[in-house]
Amino acid sequence: MTTRRRHERITAEFNMPGTLVDVSRPGSNVALPVIHVISYGPDGFIEKDVNELSELIVLFANWPVTWVNVDPMEQGPDARLIIENFAKVFSLHELVVDDIVNVHQRSKVEEYEEHLFVVTRMLIDRDEVETEQLSLFLGKNFVLTFREVPKDCLDSVREKIRKGRGRIRQEKSDYLMYAIIDAVVDSYFPLLTSLADRIDIIEDSVLESYDEDTPSDMYQIRRDVLSLRRSIWPAREALNSLIRDTMPLINDSTRLYLRDCHDHAVRIIDLLEMYREVCSALMEVHYTRASNRLNEVMKVLTIITVLFIPPTLVAGIYGMNFNSKTSPLNMPELDWYFGYPAALILMIVVTLAVVAFLYFKGWLRTHNPSKKSRP
Amino acid sequence: MTTRRRHERITAEFNMPGTLVDVSRPGSNVALPVIHVISYGPDGFIEKDVNELSELIVLFANWPVTWVNVDPMEQGPDARLIIENFAKVFSLHELVVDDIVNVHQRSKVEEYEEHLFVVTRMLIDRDEVETEQLSLFLGKNFVLTFREVPKDCLDSVREKIRKGRGRIRQEKSDYLMYAIIDAVVDSYFPLLTSLADRIDIIEDSVLESYDEDTPSDMYQIRRDVLSLRRSIWPAREALNSLIRDTMPLINDSTRLYLRDCHDHAVRIIDLLEMYREVCSALMEVHYTRASNRLNEVMKVLTIITVLFIPPTLVAGIYGMNFNSKTSPLNMPELDWYFGYPAALILMIVVTLAVVAFLYFKGWLRTHNPSKKSRP
Amino acid sequence: MTTRRRHERITAEFNMPGTLVDVSRPGSNVALPVIHVISYGPDGFIEKDVNELSELIVLFANWPVTWVNVDPMEQGPDARLIIENFAKVFSLHELVVDDIVNVHQRSKVEEYEEHLFVVTRMLIDRDEVETEQLSLFLGKNFVLTFREVPKDCLDSVREKIRKGRGRIRQEKSDYLMYAIIDAVVDSYFPLLTSLADRIDIIEDSVLESYDEDTPSDMYQIRRDVLSLRRSIWPAREALNSLIRDTMPLINDSTRLYLRDCHDHAVRIIDLLEMYREVCSALMEVHYTRASNRLNEVMKVLTIITVLFIPPTLVAGIYGMNFNSKTSPLNMPELDWYFGYPAALILMIVVTLAVVAFLYFKGWLRTHNPSKKSRP
Amino acid sequence: MTTRRRHERITAEFNMPGTLVDVSRPGSNVALPVIHVISYGPDGFIEKDVNELSELIVLFANWPVTWVNVDPMEQGPDARLIIENFAKVFSLHELVVDDIVNVHQRSKVEEYEEHLFVVTRMLIDRDEVETEQLSLFLGKNFVLTFREVPKDCLDSVREKIRKGRGRIRQEKSDYLMYAIIDAVVDSYFPLLTSLADRIDIIEDSVLESYDEDTPSDMYQIRRDVLSLRRSIWPAREALNSLIRDTMPLINDSTRLYLRDCHDHAVRIIDLLEMYREVCSALMEVHYTRASNRLNEVMKVLTIITVLFIPPTLVAGIYGMNFNSKTSPLNMPELDWYFGYPAALILMIVVTLAVVAFLYFKGWLRTHNPSKKSRP
Amino acid sequence: MTTRRRHERITAEFNMPGTLVDVSRPGSNVALPVIHVISYGPDGFIEKDVNELSELIVLFANWPVTWVNVDPMEQGPDARLIIENFAKVFSLHELVVDDIVNVHQRSKVEEYEEHLFVVTRMLIDRDEVETEQLSLFLGKNFVLTFREVPKDCLDSVREKIRKGRGRIRQEKSDYLMYAIIDAVVDSYFPLLTSLADRIDIIEDSVLESYDEDTPSDMYQIRRDVLSLRRSIWPAREALNSLIRDTMPLINDSTRLYLRDCHDHAVRIIDLLEMYREVCSALMEVHYTRASNRLNEVMKVLTIITVLFIPPTLVAGIYGMNFNSKTSPLNMPELDWYFGYPAALILMIVVTLAVVAFLYFKGWLRTHNPSKKSRP
Repeated sequence: MTTRRRHERITAEFNMPGTLVDVSRPGSNVALPVIHVISYGPDGFIEKDVNELSELIVLFANWPVTWVNVDPMEQGPDARLIIENFAKVFSLHELVVDDIVNVHQRSKVEEYEEHLFVVTRMLIDRDEVETEQLSLFLGKNFVLTFREVPKDCLDSVREKIRKGRGRIRQEKSDYLMYAIIDAVVDSYFPLLTSLADRIDIIEDSVLESYDEDTPSDMYQIRRDVLSLRRSIWPAREALNSLIRDTMPLINDSTRLYLRDCHDHAVRIIDLLEMYREVCSALMEVHYTRASNRLNEVMKVLTIITVLFIPPTLVAGIYGMNFNSKTSPLNMPELDWYFGYPAALILMIVVTLAVVAFLYFKGWLRTHNPSKKSRP
Repeated sequence: MTTRRRHERITAEFNMPGTLVDVSRPGSNVALPVIHVISYGPDGFIEKDVNELSELIVLFANWPVTWVNVDPMEQGPDARLIIENFAKVFSLHELVVDDIVNVHQRSKVEEYEEHLFVVTRMLIDRDEVETEQLSLFLGKNFVLTFREVPKDCLDSVREKIRKGRGRIRQEKSDYLMYAIIDAVVDSYFPLLTSLADRIDIIEDSVLESYDEDTPSDMYQIRRDVLSLRRSIWPAREALNSLIRDTMPLINDSTRLYLRDCHDHAVRIIDLLEMYREVCSALMEVHYTRASNRLNEVMKVLTIITVLFIPPTLVAGIYGMNFNSKTSPLNMPELDWYFGYPAALILMIVVTLAVVAFLYFKGWLRTHNPSKKSRP
Repeated sequence: MTTRRRHERITAEFNMPGTLVDVSRPGSNVALPVIHVISYGPDGFIEKDVNELSELIVLFANWPVTWVNVDPMEQGPDARLIIENFAKVFSLHELVVDDIVNVHQRSKVEEYEEHLFVVTRMLIDRDEVETEQLSLFLGKNFVLTFREVPKDCLDSVREKIRKGRGRIRQEKSDYLMYAIIDAVVDSYFPLLTSLADRIDIIEDSVLESYDEDTPSDMYQIRRDVLSLRRSIWPAREALNSLIRDTMPLINDSTRLYLRDCHDHAVRIIDLLEMYREVCSALMEVHYTRASNRLNEVMKVLTIITVLFIPPTLVAGIYGMNFNSKTSPLNMPELDWYFGYPAALILMIVVTLAVVAFLYFKGWLRTHNPSKKSRP
Repeated sequence: MTTRRRHERITAEFNMPGTLVDVSRPGSNVALPVIHVISYGPDGFIEKDVNELSELIVLFANWPVTWVNVDPMEQGPDARLIIENFAKVFSLHELVVDDIVNVHQRSKVEEYEEHLFVVTRMLIDRDEVETEQLSLFLGKNFVLTFREVPKDCLDSVREKIRKGRGRIRQEKSDYLMYAIIDAVVDSYFPLLTSLADRIDIIEDSVLESYDEDTPSDMYQIRRDVLSLRRSIWPAREALNSLIRDTMPLINDSTRLYLRDCHDHAVRIIDLLEMYREVCSALMEVHYTRASNRLNEVMKVLTIITVLFIPPTLVAGIYGMNFNSKTSPLNMPELDWYFGYPAALILMIVVTLAVVAFLYFKGWLRTHNPSKKSRP
Repeated sequence: MTTRRRHERITAEFNMPGTLVDVSRPGSNVALPVIHVISYGPDGFIEKDVNELSELIVLFANWPVTWVNVDPMEQGPDARLIIENFAKVFSLHELVVDDIVNVHQRSKVEEYEEHLFVVTRMLIDRDEVETEQLSLFLGKNFVLTFREVPKDCLDSVREKIRKGRGRIRQEKSDYLMYAIIDAVVDSYFPLLTSLADRIDIIEDSVLESYDEDTPSDMYQIRRDVLSLRRSIWPAREALNSLIRDTMPLINDSTRLYLRDCHDHAVRIIDLLEMYREVCSALMEVHYTRASNRLNEVMKVLTIITVLFIPPTLVAGIYGMNFNSKTSPLNMPELDWYFGYPAALILMIVVTLAVVAFLYFKGWLRTHNPSKKSRP
């Protein structure tokens, strides 16, 4: 897992506005991509792939709400031309074309004369923090979506339309927009659960053991939290403006649903904030554990040194080769009757003396001084 | 305690919106749960468990205020159906059903046409930071509460109604709502006291002794503070909107009481902020104490090394076996009259020389240089 | 000092709303506490202790401004009853009674129909960060104060009234309220001076020497700063609302004075913020000094090791007892003419070789590498 | 690269307002600098260098939009005089002259009676964080730009005019202003990519290896992020005021484009914030890795000490020269039959005893205690 | 420099409101201090010291603008009386007298009925962060300034009046106020340059070498930055209110100039914020360098230990005195033909074995593990 993640670079989250496409090529004879359309009303629905715009016009005329989904990015360099064609048909603004092509937009809501343009970022894979852009247009009787990749998290919405579950078939296009945005916001929850699991594992590891990989794992989580927050924060703002603003395309009843969706976004942000703070608190615990380990190791070193170095000196002294024959002062101890036992006792005495000296100097009492000073 | 807490996982604080219940089951023949009702007026009160909605209608007609409490979660998978039945009877909004079933909502206030919907999170056990959701509807002459678990912190409110204490029996349903919210907010105080006690204990431990478990304990406190803040912060916002907004269901006199309740919430937040800062300040003190301990241990090591390693070298030298007979240069000291005492003195001199060298190089003065340099 | 402070617990700053008093006792035959009253006007003043409310009515009728001070807390459990009696006489709101009894309120301003209720927190002792609550009512021709303890910081105000100094005797009750609030805000300055002194002492200690108690002292200061900020921050908000709001009881001219008072509160907050940042900057300096100390100690250890361990090995080698008679390869050095001097020289050479090796490997140049590499 | 960067000093980012130019010199006979002009309309464009203001007047009269670019800074001390001449011709405000000469202004928008004054900071070189000031005037039919250096990032705008690409030739001067500001904002993206690359490299280095230069590299990135943020933040504010304010010179359609430009600025800020947080998270990982390294080294030291110091003492003891002939107590072991093997075994036993002692004391189990304690 | 700075205490930045002066002394027969006056108009100016207020009245009557400067603080305890005299003459508010006497006010703007009161804090010495208060009154045709010390940074303004440079002599008193405030704000820039220089020096020191005094120097800079920010932040607010508020004394044209001045203040704050963040980033680099140094030192220690302790044990073993005559098991090696060379080889082998053991255990690969693991 660590290896795979390493290759999602920071650079990968980045691209410059206006640099993706070579705009110099003429925009005429580009084939329309396969367009997936669902039209529905209270009484039924029709779902098909269309190739010509004329088909769309028929659907628009016959059904209360039509959801048109396009995957322009699959066409690669032609993506822009495809979107420009759509822009002409639906009279979308030139700037919007840029926003769809450059798929690293922040979530936002822009109001144009006859439609509403919403950019959202959805999570598809529960193990990946990679978000995909979903651009959405709301018109009077249609919703037009452009996906970054030919996958999305909207199957639940499609199922609701197909099975007529909930109020969706009774409602207008603004409710469809709500349903899509709601599915997008809720697509964050599985990844949040996965993040929570990862934090739980690290929490166990930090509080009970000492694992050197913890900082790297924690770093991955913090980067994921940062990325998610960067995606969801603008979504909250966008939802806020959808609730507040008096946009004619959105009914008051739908606004209630959007308010609920906004609450979900706020909850996600709350959780992310908490994860961030928990991570940094765990990091601090990890630090102190590292420092405790060092203290332990040093204590071991010190104890060995205190126990073995002083008697080693004594042994060294009585290993000296001074000639006791040339002088009565030269190591007469070596000839004493109790010389050897005395030397051994001297070693023990020296060691104890050093321990006592350090103890009374207070250097050995460092570990928990209060336990002594309390009554 | 530590062991138990470890199993309240981060994941436990989490569930996805809309995933709890299998909505596909038909919602008809589910038995109503036991509903606890208190109806009261200035002159008396009646308290009973009802099983049929018709009983409720009679109570509503005869008493100024009725408090209906339901514990839908006990029914498990049927919870949603029960709430949907209530929603039909009281004409509650569809979204509200979701909010009641998914019991991890943030505190909030939502205004609907004929009632007010309030979500709060209450603390039941003073040793647990686990909050339980209490969903509350305010109507003209009733308050409807849905609990997450069949326990709450509202016994004081019930007692006030039963004994006619305070103004509650004279007031309308909005005052009952205030009394409930007030009891919920005040349910945080015992846990705050318990947190303050735990911080006091850690403060003692940090300032007077050195305890390796401190970081873990502190981490638990910080997580609890984070959890509480995440619960109480939206409550403050919700209370703020209750005070500010001109909701027809709330009288001006009750608004005064809600302002008081809001002040309590602000005080809780203040205290939590202070606890957070105190914890992080304590953590820093703990760090420096750990670093001081390490310094102490290192000083011991250094002193032993300075005292015993240099004479060991001297002893080693005079323990060499050079043959003094083959050359007058080969360790003539061994045959000197004062050889041995001289060697001992040499050891002492070498040790002192090293100490002096280090001292004048300034390496031993590191501990508190200013005491020397001041007049 | 440290010892005494330790017993001001975090728990001490805490009490639950509504738990202090047993409200079940009947509130009739409680003796009025001694009430201290000062009535004054441009021409004179009268100061006395009253026991009956009828006396108060006479004073109110005859003097432009009357300041009534009550110390209900001295009566202990009767405190609430006393305040409830006052509440009836002065028609104060029920909630206000709670706020006066539970003496851990935040500073705040509440507007009621005929009076203004102000809660402030004053500092009495310049060595204590303990704040005492002063609850204040402003009426048309009176100011009513309730103290938590029978001490306050308002003697300067009383002296001004008695000696007719300044404009106070010419002004109405709102100016008296200003004078009291101003004295309360200014009561923070002596403690700020004391904090500044303590920080100065720690600054000296951190920058010039190394004192292990610094973190604890710093922690005390930071907790004091936190406590003070928690007291003065709401006071600033309260003053702000007094300036802004169009309260009929406060004249425009008094509002100018309150603006000045607000400036003082802002200055106190500014200073506290600065103290906080200075403390955390000092803490960091303390950290690095600790780390420098460790580095110094380690350098000493390393130097001793480099100087004495390698020659010890050489001495050890020539202290081996291989039998030179059984083989010409067995330590012939021991019989050489220059054997011993050569061994000593070898020791020096080995030591220098190690030093040189480490030096060229760059491990000894760590201390200040730049001084070598610069021209 | 590090060497070059070191000489971009903090001081370099700084100059005092009003100190650049000696204003005392008379402003009459200074030659006009070469002025580069592009005039254009839907049908064509003309591009030339002019030397006299009269030429400008002709161009203004004949073309819908004229873009006049001046590089006053090349004239050095005469810069101010040149700008003052322009100020007279275009009736620009005196203060604006200061802002153009002192090239360290923040981005801002100022509205004057007949024109709009915009200061922006552009990045020219993708490897440098150095921003250059571009001062811009918007008049009814002209845009006047003053550059700090004779380079800019506006070639794309010039190409669009020359080749008639996009809507620029159809639009008025306010669209030209938008196009210029857009190019300026987009000039930040290449440097952001470069920053992201540098962070990716450091991320690899921190997570996989340990590089001592990491902190310095990270510091350079953080300083660059700080500088960029300081440049782009006011740009965002300026763009915000351009969108909000009802300036008569800016059409509503252009405002849509400026909104898009504002979104780009917000995205840049978002990215910079994320880089900042990623850097500080990486720094923490680097810290813990350093601390882990220290722990590893200490463990090695301890193990060597545990393994070799205790047997060294034993060897030292049996190297003592006590005379076994003078006393049966004096090291009889030396004459035992199994003396030497016993001594070797003793060494091993002592070592194992020490290891066991430390192990049972828990000092050696520090490394990962949980792995033992788990089932 | 460090020594001098140490005595600018935190306490020095502090004084209590209302404690400076003994107000009890009668305020009659205090001599007026020397007052410096400049009166000017488009046609000329007059500059003189006046002693009597009557002189001022003549000047006010004859010149469009008069700038009166007073240095009351020189009179010491009489300062208040002098200012009170002025207050009577110019009908200044009582509170203003306090603000002038207590020279530690925050910058602020207060509007009174007929004049505007502005408090600013100016920097006089470019090496000192000590700010001096300049209190300023703006009336219809005069500006009245009170200085804390008889020095200021306003010579450039005086020169402009004397030499008739710029628009100052054509404008009214509000422009004079602007000119003074502008000079005050610009007085911060030299100190900022000096701070930038100091940071540059520390940056060099941190990035290229290791200097133990860095934390102290950095601390001084951070305290200076904090002090400056505390001075300039309220100035920005004050300037903001001057721009926004519709004060009749300030013309719209002057407001443009004040907006420019406000921009300067914002730029100063921006720079200070950046310095603050650069300092804390540098501090972190300093930390890691300290930790790297420690790692280096420890590596040295470990290497010496690994190289010399194991062979020392071997030497110790063969230095034991077991009697090879009493047993063939007692150190037969000593009599072997290749005993000594074998022992030396054994030493080398043991050392290499230890190195290899540590290497394969991974303990020696800590330094840069990635370089090995990469292809």
